[in-house]
Amino acid sequence: MHALRLQRASSFRTEADTFGELQVPEDRYWGAQTQRSLQNFDIGGPTERLPPPLIKAFGVLKKAASIVNTTYGLDPKIAGAIQQAADEVISGKLIDHFPLVVFQTGSGTQSNMNVNEVVSNRAIEILGGTIGSKKPVHPNDHVNMSQSSNDTFPTAMHVAAVTEIVGTLIPALEELRDALDAKAKTFENIIKIGRTHLQDATPLTLGQEFSGYVMQVSNGIARVKDTLPRLKLLAQGGTAVGTGLNTKRGFDVKVAAEISKLTGIDFQTAPNKFEALAAHDALVEAHGALNVIAVSFMKIANDIRFLGSGPRCGLGELSLPENEPGSSIMPGKVNPTQCEALTMVAAQVMGNNTAVSVAGANGHFELNVFKPVIIKNVLQSIRLLADGARSFTKNCVVGIEANEKRIGQLLNESLMLATILNSHLGYDNVAKCAKKAHKEGKTLKEATVELGFLTPDEFDQKVRPELMLKPDEP
Amino acid sequence: MHALRLQRASSFRTEADTFGELQVPEDRYWGAQTQRSLQNFDIGGPTERLPPPLIKAFGVLKKAASIVNTTYGLDPKIAGAIQQAADEVISGKLIDHFPLVVFQTGSGTQSNMNVNEVVSNRAIEILGGTIGSKKPVHPNDHVNMSQSSNDTFPTAMHVAAVTEIVGTLIPALEELRDALDAKAKTFENIIKIGRTHLQDATPLTLGQEFSGYVMQVSNGIARVKDTLPRLKLLAQGGTAVGTGLNTKRGFDVKVAAEISKLTGIDFQTAPNKFEALAAHDALVEAHGALNVIAVSFMKIANDIRFLGSGPRCGLGELSLPENEPGSSIMPGKVNPTQCEALTMVAAQVMGNNTAVSVAGANGHFELNVFKPVIIKNVLQSIRLLADGARSFTKNCVVGIEANEKRIGQLLNESLMLATILNSHLGYDNVAKCAKKAHKEGKTLKEATVELGFLTPDEFDQKVRPELMLKPDEP
Amino acid sequence: MHALRLQRASSFRTEADTFGELQVPEDRYWGAQTQRSLQNFDIGGPTERLPPPLIKAFGVLKKAASIVNTTYGLDPKIAGAIQQAADEVISGKLIDHFPLVVFQTGSGTQSNMNVNEVVSNRAIEILGGTIGSKKPVHPNDHVNMSQSSNDTFPTAMHVAAVTEIVGTLIPALEELRDALDAKAKTFENIIKIGRTHLQDATPLTLGQEFSGYVMQVSNGIARVKDTLPRLKLLAQGGTAVGTGLNTKRGFDVKVAAEISKLTGIDFQTAPNKFEALAAHDALVEAHGALNVIAVSFMKIANDIRFLGSGPRCGLGELSLPENEPGSSIMPGKVNPTQCEALTMVAAQVMGNNTAVSVAGANGHFELNVFKPVIIKNVLQSIRLLADGARSFTKNCVVGIEANEKRIGQLLNESLMLATILNSHLGYDNVAKCAKKAHKEGKTLKEATVELGFLTPDEFDQKVRPELMLKPDEP
Amino acid sequence: MHALRLQRASSFRTEADTFGELQVPEDRYWGAQTQRSLQNFDIGGPTERLPPPLIKAFGVLKKAASIVNTTYGLDPKIAGAIQQAADEVISGKLIDHFPLVVFQTGSGTQSNMNVNEVVSNRAIEILGGTIGSKKPVHPNDHVNMSQSSNDTFPTAMHVAAVTEIVGTLIPALEELRDALDAKAKTFENIIKIGRTHLQDATPLTLGQEFSGYVMQVSNGIARVKDTLPRLKLLAQGGTAVGTGLNTKRGFDVKVAAEISKLTGIDFQTAPNKFEALAAHDALVEAHGALNVIAVSFMKIANDIRFLGSGPRCGLGELSLPENEPGSSIMPGKVNPTQCEALTMVAAQVMGNNTAVSVAGANGHFELNVFKPVIIKNVLQSIRLLADGARSFTKNCVVGIEANEKRIGQLLNESLMLATILNSHLGYDNVAKCAKKAHKEGKTLKEATVELGFLTPDEFDQKVRPELMLKPDEP
Repeated sequence: MHALRLQRASSFRTEADTFGELQVPEDRYWGAQTQRSLQNFDIGGPTERLPPPLIKAFGVLKKAASIVNTTYGLDPKIAGAIQQAADEVISGKLIDHFPLVVFQTGSGTQSNMNVNEVVSNRAIEILGGTIGSKKPVHPNDHVNMSQSSNDTFPTAMHVAAVTEIVGTLIPALEELRDALDAKAKTFENIIKIGRTHLQDATPLTLGQEFSGYVMQVSNGIARVKDTLPRLKLLAQGGTAVGTGLNTKRGFDVKVAAEISKLTGIDFQTAPNKFEALAAHDALVEAHGALNVIAVSFMKIANDIRFLGSGPRCGLGELSLPENEPGSSIMPGKVNPTQCEALTMVAAQVMGNNTAVSVAGANGHFELNVFKPVIIKNVLQSIRLLADGARSFTKNCVVGIEANEKRIGQLLNESLMLATILNSHLGYDNVAKCAKKAHKEGKTLKEATVELGFLTPDEFDQKVRPELMLKPDEP
Repeated sequence: MHALRLQRASSFRTEADTFGELQVPEDRYWGAQTQRSLQNFDIGGPTERLPPPLIKAFGVLKKAASIVNTTYGLDPKIAGAIQQAADEVISGKLIDHFPLVVFQTGSGTQSNMNVNEVVSNRAIEILGGTIGSKKPVHPNDHVNMSQSSNDTFPTAMHVAAVTEIVGTLIPALEELRDALDAKAKTFENIIKIGRTHLQDATPLTLGQEFSGYVMQVSNGIARVKDTLPRLKLLAQGGTAVGTGLNTKRGFDVKVAAEISKLTGIDFQTAPNKFEALAAHDALVEAHGALNVIAVSFMKIANDIRFLGSGPRCGLGELSLPENEPGSSIMPGKVNPTQCEALTMVAAQVMGNNTAVSVAGANGHFELNVFKPVIIKNVLQSIRLLADGARSFTKNCVVGIEANEKRIGQLLNESLMLATILNSHLGYDNVAKCAKKAHKEGKTLKEATVELGFLTPDEFDQKVRPELMLKPDEP
Repeated sequence: MHALRLQRASSFRTEADTFGELQVPEDRYWGAQTQRSLQNFDIGGPTERLPPPLIKAFGVLKKAASIVNTTYGLDPKIAGAIQQAADEVISGKLIDHFPLVVFQTGSGTQSNMNVNEVVSNRAIEILGGTIGSKKPVHPNDHVNMSQSSNDTFPTAMHVAAVTEIVGTLIPALEELRDALDAKAKTFENIIKIGRTHLQDATPLTLGQEFSGYVMQVSNGIARVKDTLPRLKLLAQGGTAVGTGLNTKRGFDVKVAAEISKLTGIDFQTAPNKFEALAAHDALVEAHGALNVIAVSFMKIANDIRFLGSGPRCGLGELSLPENEPGSSIMPGKVNPTQCEALTMVAAQVMGNNTAVSVAGANGHFELNVFKPVIIKNVLQSIRLLADGARSFTKNCVVGIEANEKRIGQLLNESLMLATILNSHLGYDNVAKCAKKAHKEGKTLKEATVELGFLTPDEFDQKVRPELMLKPDEP
Repeated sequence: MHALRLQRASSFRTEADTFGELQVPEDRYWGAQTQRSLQNFDIGGPTERLPPPLIKAFGVLKKAASIVNTTYGLDPKIAGAIQQAADEVISGKLIDHFPLVVFQTGSGTQSNMNVNEVVSNRAIEILGGTIGSKKPVHPNDHVNMSQSSNDTFPTAMHVAAVTEIVGTLIPALEELRDALDAKAKTFENIIKIGRTHLQDATPLTLGQEFSGYVMQVSNGIARVKDTLPRLKLLAQGGTAVGTGLNTKRGFDVKVAAEISKLTGIDFQTAPNKFEALAAHDALVEAHGALNVIAVSFMKIANDIRFLGSGPRCGLGELSLPENEPGSSIMPGKVNPTQCEALTMVAAQVMGNNTAVSVAGANGHFELNVFKPVIIKNVLQSIRLLADGARSFTKNCVVGIEANEKRIGQLLNESLMLATILNSHLGYDNVAKCAKKAHKEGKTLKEATVELGFLTPDEFDQKVRPELMLKPDEP
């Protein structure tokens, strides 16, 4: 894969690091360390590259650092060029210059160097220098000034995760919650049979049923928000082991402030940098919240597809929108494909939760070296949940319709309206009526009347589903 | 197993439910439905019984319900007997009357009936009636008054989980945090080599290293506390499907208030009962926090046992307390057994997280029917983490000592103090010194002097570990 | 818990190990190291004790070792007493003398010593000596002769796992397979609607549907059998680190042969003892097979409860046996409780799979020290799957009946019989018929005739479900 | 993302399905159903596309089906064009025509149609027809002849998984095993200290230690091979629900034979097609084997990086190859980056195992609709394990060197050689020697002599590590 790319490149330049020189494609800004990683970690191919939100977060971080570094003596001309280059990283237009995969060094050092190299080379270019010369902008001395991979990478992890949660996931969840809530309101007067143990149970409204989904999604939003306080704490300033050696006093606070300004999100410097480098509990916690959302999605999508099952031989209470032909062999069949996509998202996120937990548990001493795989899984889960929620909202939820005829028919056939008679006839007598109806294939009314407990009129007066939707008045 | 128990019982009485009669051991308060479950679910044996904290929570709930029910017309004499019986359930003295296992009906109905049967029979006994007669205290009509298994079981789940978190887990975590913090303070002046990628890195103090563990445990406490708001919401009042049919208006709020009074914890009625029955996202969320604690424990215990590895051929920086002979074959060897127990706890909790997630995701319609397995895992994880933390604190953390001699020796041998020279000599020159020392087996000082970068005096003046523990002054 | 037990004990004796003396309850055979573990690892309580099959396996191992040791010089009188005591361990009658929990030292050393202590003290008693005197039978020198905890514990793990798989799980799975197969045969002529994507699909017989479950369980048996070759390899003879130091050449092979004789299962000595101590991949693999069985159970039990859903408002194709009253509030309602128990078993086993994997992955150097938690989870999963399968077979599968009337009704209402017309009318035309019927609430026949594609007679002749159950003749 | 692509497309053509017409980029072979899926499932973006090995397997399947279909009447000219187009799919050159993501319909129908559309349009082009006209090669009637998405997708899943296991994973594992074995042989005479519980233990050779890794990888190969018999069973011929409706008798067997011929792997038709569509237990099983390999990799890579830790303050027994500069701030430091990449692979695969298990457990009735997410995870795990193994072999294992000086030094300092004295001095006396040496910082020899147990000469004669590497002669 990489070999192929190199072959295709028409020309190369020489870049060097402390290990020696090697050839880099002329049309790429990356330098020796990136190139070395490409060659040493041929694992998984392009789909395993570190995701764009992380690269963007690195752009934000390098910009913020260079702004702060001018207060510590960085030449403003160099800083300006770094910031311009960092803006291009943030914009996404340089994404093809970040080819490194997740399965590299576990500190993400090579990706930090990738950013340093790309930003410095682009800044050199802006300033009219020679790419690869490290002059006048050095990847380590200037772009990485006062930083270490060990604090930049976890900082970028948190910035990326928070940014994506706030900017992508929460809005998508809010859309879904609102769409479900609109349905809950539309359906608030449709009385239907309840189902517990998959068995017929006492009635509720379809609106009440959907209100449970609304609550699940609302809680999901609250849950993920509750993890943000710890996610908004940034490792920057800890440098190599958490002590802050080789950075400047105050750098950590200023960088967090600058990142907050650039992103509009209130990040703060981590009160304990040792924890911030050595553990990623905050990301494990955040993914735990994503896992609950996945669990909620599995429930909601399962319910909706079962309620929409049919058209003739399922429950048939809902009609889901038809978005595509369902089967290559069975004409006229339409499938709950959006539910299927969403439940597959849920399965993936539940799996990612295990991956993140295993990775989070296995740090040692001053550094957790499962950083890339942690952030990859967190960002993938955020994206899949957000995209999944939006697709499900747009292509399924908003188009759901209630099959009122079918719903009414099932309700009236049910024996479970019997429950309302408990207070009139007592538990044991009601059980007799229900059992008789069940065994003889009769309606509850017929059985109750035949057993002499009620007259038909009494039955109609007492067994009214609309009375079964809330507690009794005391 | 059960057969054995029945054989041993000297005599039996007849109990009945809507399904018919069966024989129950004379010396047990349970009734027909409990007995039936025992016979139908011979899965796993006594170790799989629902855990005592859940049974106690049921005691609290039944007491609270009977108090509230007197305001809705329950005969105070009956209510009083119920409360007395419930108090005995809460005290734990009736635990042998709750024989049902996790792997029963997924709503926990049989355990709710077990409670109803035991409380009613014991209340009957208190009132001088005949056990099994259901008079004057009926398990359904009185003990279960205004309730359904579908709302009592999830209520008991939440009451048990919150009670154990607040009463057991958090104090144990606080003990651990404080013990680690005391060590962090004791060790605050011991400078040691840092390790990243398991490789020698710049120094930090042993106190700083332990402060990271303190932060992890502190955050763990905060995390689990942040899940309590949603765990404190009680399903009680939703009855069978969430509508509250067959209960009374206001019952839900009053029961929550009464439970709060009995437990001293501010429970509230769930704002949406449909969600509270159909999903257990709040418990999945809470277990997510437990999972993070497990992840933290794995990191902390791994670090401590590696730092304590030796006595001669490991890192040897810490001495762990010797609690037992380590090996049946190797004399004098002492093992980090408390770390091993704690990491095994972590593995179990990480597994339970998958179990709880799978169970939480698979509810259908108005009821999640994985309730017993969810609460079993949550309570097991709470207990193991709490017991594990306490054992680890008492038998390991408080007895940890620093091997200052060894720590100092390693620090002085290290090449990584070189980092401090970056600002004096530049990155590339420092790399040369370090490489030379590494290749030739020399100290950093020797290499630096031989390469002519510094005189011995200059070296000693610049390379002082105590200057490497924090950022530079700007 | 333990404190309580000690309080209750009426008298104590003094036992000693290399660490010193302590008090042991007079009526227990265990010695100092067991007592010490009890005090140092108060984690989880009695439900977390190492499971009986492991203790029995240790009995087998100690017996086999003593038999082999006589060929290396062990006094036959001592050996005979050890064997008699070991037989009592195997019989289960000494189970109360094995109080240690999972969360102890990760090598299981303390449980190995527990066995050594109990067997030696019991053997001393048999020989008329003084319990606790270590004479004439020493726990280390005689019972543990030529052994180390590091090879006995993994040996007992494998012996226990294989024994339980062969003796408990496989027969239970075979029962389930046979019961499902009997149903498949009973149902082989009942044609029903198929369901894909939960939507109506082309027909199959109920027997065919059940044949899929039969195949899943059959494959499950094959899967778990395929893991036995590696599980049957025993670590015994590796002693402390795998080299076999302090044992005798040939001991490993002879012990494996003796264990095979005692158990009737063809165990062999592991070809590489280093791997056998340092990793538990064979148990992770075996649990992987258990995980697949759990996955199969989830599918089968879900299908059966959905097919049995109703009685009036679900799919209603199956009638499941009524084993108990289903709800404390809804009379007449019967729930698929065996399915619920089985799916809860599945969730637990899926969780255990994560626990075992995490534990298996975290061994270091010459020893994996997650041994107790691994075997606990493996044995729990085996037992739950076996008990669950048996309960499900006996209390559910054998009593399943087909609701032929309902099945026929659904089949005839379905539109999906249309598929058979593809070859007659072409895909696009058939789609038109099905869509028309669907939109207008008509039968497929009506729609097809109205659209002029077929006459009623032609329709009846072509659309015959019984022709849709297998491929066409070429 | 998709919008972007469409914008760039210079021109479009109209394609249609039973749902209506839509615009497709002129330069793509896909048709209406693919386009519709692109628009309806904007979830995850290009990195979530179904992986190339699955597309290739579909190419194989479509080729095989067209060959077999000629024996059932398919026009050889059409069949020839289909085969030519399918060959281009197999070759990978059409990969850009397969844009669909995992999170689509759970049956993979849309990807089956994507293949049908691409192959038919390309075949039309080959035959000089008009792309999009469906003439003379119809995507359903010809390319999908005798097939359904419900049997093609699982067939392609199995073909892809087996092909990748056999062609990619196993060779990579063999390379790793051989490289480890070469090291085991190279190191066979280097005696080193053993470590159990991370503590010093009796010695073994470095070659013995590596032989454990060899065994783990060898077993991993055997494990994954043992899952192949069930993976080689193909669903093809089951069509929509497993009955084989709308295909021809014998088609299933012939297609399996043809696929075997094309791939050189002995595939067979599944004996029960109902199971083959409704469950993916075989893939869950196969992933279980991948999970064990991940578990093994975690152990091996952890050991190697710990043994290579240093350079001065770790264990330092191994030197790992230096592939890149380790840190942007610490000169001269080289990190075990290949171990880190491999352990991250392990964490990902362990997570994928949960995802696959959840997905496998949640099928319903005649169809599991988590097919795409299952195969995505299986193929990702295979690729990551294979690439990870190769990278680890090439960039780490082959370059590992033993630091014999350091190994010897540690061995001689160790107290654990004491174990060999057990048989001479007895367990308790040896414990005394070891404890004295430990407490007084002396060598074992000094302590033993001082305690008067042995003369210096006797000690040297008895305590010889080379005698401690295997069992005693009897």
